[in-house]
Amino acid sequence: MEKTGVAIVGMGTVGAGVARLLLDHGDRTARHAGRTLWLTHAVVRDLEKARDVELPEGVLTDDLQRVIDDPEVSVVVQLIGGIEPAKSIMLQLLESGKDVVTANKALLAQHGPELFDRARELGRSIAFEASVAGGIPIIANISQCLSANQIESLQGILNGTCNFIVSKMDAEGADYSVTVAEAQQLGYAEADPTMDVDGTDAAQKLAILAHLAFGARVDWSQIPRRGIDGLQAVDFKYAKHLGYRIKLIALARLTESGLALDVSPMLVKIGQPLAEVRANYNAVGVVGDAVGPVFFQGQGAGQMPTASAVVADLIDTAVGRTSITFETLELWAKGHERVGLADVGSLVSRYYLRFNVQDVPSVLSKISGALGRNGISIASVYQHDVDLSKEGIVPVVIVTKNTSQSAVDTALEELKSVDAIDAVAETFKILD
Amino acid sequence: MEKTGVAIVGMGTVGAGVARLLLDHGDRTARHAGRTLWLTHAVVRDLEKARDVELPEGVLTDDLQRVIDDPEVSVVVQLIGGIEPAKSIMLQLLESGKDVVTANKALLAQHGPELFDRARELGRSIAFEASVAGGIPIIANISQCLSANQIESLQGILNGTCNFIVSKMDAEGADYSVTVAEAQQLGYAEADPTMDVDGTDAAQKLAILAHLAFGARVDWSQIPRRGIDGLQAVDFKYAKHLGYRIKLIALARLTESGLALDVSPMLVKIGQPLAEVRANYNAVGVVGDAVGPVFFQGQGAGQMPTASAVVADLIDTAVGRTSITFETLELWAKGHERVGLADVGSLVSRYYLRFNVQDVPSVLSKISGALGRNGISIASVYQHDVDLSKEGIVPVVIVTKNTSQSAVDTALEELKSVDAIDAVAETFKILD
Ligand SMILES: NC(=O)c1ccc[n+]([C@@H]2O[C@H](COP(=O)([O-])OP(=O)(O)OC[C@H]3O[C@@H](n4cnc5c(N)ncnc54)[C@H](OP(=O)(O)O)[C@@H]3O)[C@@H](O)[C@H]2O)c1
Ligand SMILES: NC(=O)c1ccc[n+]([C@@H]2O[C@H](COP(=O)([O-])OP(=O)(O)OC[C@H]3O[C@@H](n4cnc5c(N)ncnc54)[C@H](OP(=O)(O)O)[C@@H]3O)[C@@H](O)[C@H]2O)c1
Repeated sequence: MEKTGVAIVGMGTVGAGVARLLLDHGDRTARHAGRTLWLTHAVVRDLEKARDVELPEGVLTDDLQRVIDDPEVSVVVQLIGGIEPAKSIMLQLLESGKDVVTANKALLAQHGPELFDRARELGRSIAFEASVAGGIPIIANISQCLSANQIESLQGILNGTCNFIVSKMDAEGADYSVTVAEAQQLGYAEADPTMDVDGTDAAQKLAILAHLAFGARVDWSQIPRRGIDGLQAVDFKYAKHLGYRIKLIALARLTESGLALDVSPMLVKIGQPLAEVRANYNAVGVVGDAVGPVFFQGQGAGQMPTASAVVADLIDTAVGRTSITFETLELWAKGHERVGLADVGSLVSRYYLRFNVQDVPSVLSKISGALGRNGISIASVYQHDVDLSKEGIVPVVIVTKNTSQSAVDTALEELKSVDAIDAVAETFKILD
Repeated sequence: MEKTGVAIVGMGTVGAGVARLLLDHGDRTARHAGRTLWLTHAVVRDLEKARDVELPEGVLTDDLQRVIDDPEVSVVVQLIGGIEPAKSIMLQLLESGKDVVTANKALLAQHGPELFDRARELGRSIAFEASVAGGIPIIANISQCLSANQIESLQGILNGTCNFIVSKMDAEGADYSVTVAEAQQLGYAEADPTMDVDGTDAAQKLAILAHLAFGARVDWSQIPRRGIDGLQAVDFKYAKHLGYRIKLIALARLTESGLALDVSPMLVKIGQPLAEVRANYNAVGVVGDAVGPVFFQGQGAGQMPTASAVVADLIDTAVGRTSITFETLELWAKGHERVGLADVGSLVSRYYLRFNVQDVPSVLSKISGALGRNGISIASVYQHDVDLSKEGIVPVVIVTKNTSQSAVDTALEELKSVDAIDAVAETFKILD
């Protein structure tokens, strides 16, 4: 059987998983690739560190040059995180004639255009299934399986840490800080979870999906984003009472004025697939004009789920499918932008608004007045009895009919000056 | 831009949808295929019949020979249903050097091995994404995206008509016959829905998936199957009370003695993705040893969802991805069977058993005795008060712990002779 030489650069969590699949389950890769994928080099920084996999002698090295100089290695899995030296190494690999497979979403979200242009110039390919939603094959599904569709919208739960936290807050009524600590203890959140909980990670992944699904070239840092830090248990309770769960949603929707992108906690109707995504799972819902709504769910991270996506890319690259796809799609190529970005203020949705008020009757007319002046219709008003009322402050939740984010912002600004409103406490889009 | 000539044979529901995507949305196919897919011929039986799409002049024909003789046409979409003349036409197309795309699951489930062998001999390919689960790209996901995994189990809702009916029975407490009539009125069930409601359609699709996921060569007619005809409203009510919904599940699970296959109504825990699949949607859950559980949901039939899958296949075929996949996978090739079939009796699961009994206390000890003798432990017993008790007959529902189907069958056989048991009224597997 033919052999394709493979190297892995970066033998951390994911790298070790990929090595395990190649070494212990060569029969599978052979069956699907029609050839043996032969692990020849595994490059690390520190040769002394314990590894999560037993490698054949001579495979582990701290010398990238061995990969570059080996003509038998045609495809390299690049699994170093962050921007540098990941970027320089990827360029070096491409220049030396290697096809690259990677899981590094931060690098692609930041430098995708440059890297893809260079790969094209060199006649090489970059595969990146594992960079978004880990084990869910969302890249292949959007760029190949749904290619007959104009995609109209995409809603994703793209960060497992956030979903673990909000699912636990929803199920147990627990506070944010308590839940984060638990997630850290269980290994579902990093010691410093900032990039996860503030929405950065989800925005980087959304930028990649927005390019594949809509042909938008997006700088991820320009995607409006709000994380889950600061979510309050009380809103999970009211949301549930209204028939919703709160989820961190990465949303892309084609509107008349362009592509609207948003990462923020939103209310999702209980029973809808996205609302039922539990624990640290990821999920993506896509609406195509031919296929209608399709929904994908799976593990968005973790050693073996991510390795599953990396090895699928390896097989695709080894058999030649990747180079075809890479060539036809012209990803991030100049002049291939098909849609501009819409102002997120124009995104239309229903809204959940919680106000803390001192005096319900008088305040309600002021609120409805301000909403009305901004063209916002009220669908329903809920006033819950909670302990807060002991101090004379009562939470009032208003669900609006469809309106735009800018209308909501203006109305809330007007209400800031009303004395009897203690705070405009919380605002969520409702995902319909 | 390069052109690839395309022909469609069979311009019914799906054929018209495919033509529409090719004619009205050539930009999409061009973008994803790097070339124009040019619809050259559309073959039908009856030239006079009204068509659901406006075709350019000269395209509609009742002469298949025009396709066969046209050297510009390299790929043909074959959308005639049933076995003949679909099979002969497919062979004719392959012999004349055309790659084929089809949605005909009945033909593949029945004659897959012969057709795939012939295609291989001729150096041609057959793509069949639309044949299972319509718009859900389950074929590509199993045979490419999850190729790094040993798939351990697969659970599908593969028939939209059945899911529409059981979802409605669950939501409305309605009777089977009433619900079927409604489904027919709304166009969700055929005038003669036999092949759908008796599980034939789901078994044919499961046979195809079992080959792709496990390498089993299965004659669909040997898959044990029970349909949804005869389901009673009362069991939907008790199931819900216990926290379950009843769904028609196509199950494939790797066991120690081989691959166990089963199509039958099963209890699925509320909140599990499969339990929440509503209306006429299809869904497939797959568990891979690396990726863990992944879940796909979408429209399993209908003009445009099915056309979405067909056109994705057309693009894959035109750019050359299909021929690579087809060659490497050696589908249905002789000697490529990787697993034998297990006796369905060995399938282990928990069970829902409903007995109609005359005298609860005395009967319960007889039931638990018979179950105990067959090694079946009882997890819980529910006795509901219903109107039936007026006539002195009381339904008793027993949920067992894990056991095999053969143990359950033997126990129920023993209980047939007990006078005070009016009937062993219902038996369902519980899907965990
Ligand atoms: N972990 C996941 O679940 C997951 C999921 C999806 C995507 N990803 C992405 O996958 C990538 C890898 O993640 P990971 O969790 O596997 O990271 P990790 O555990 O931190 O491993 C990183 C590896 O890179 C090596 N490395 C760093 N700098 C190097 C250099 N200059 N030369 C050679 N090797 C170098 C490290 O070597 P030493 O071990 O010698 O220090 C280490 O083996 C990241 O981009 C991440 O975002 C991860
Ligand atoms: N409909 C769905 O949602 C769906 C979903 C998944 C898979 N499928 C599969 O897709 C296939 C097509 O389904 P469909 O719903 O489109 O069927 P359909 O509406 O019954 O159309 C069948 C077409 O085949 C043509 N035909 C029959 N015999 C022919 C012959 N000898 N020569 C030329 N044309 C012939 C018919 O021509 P005339 O119009 O002239 O009679 C008709 O246009 C079937 O295998 C079905 O199982 C359908």
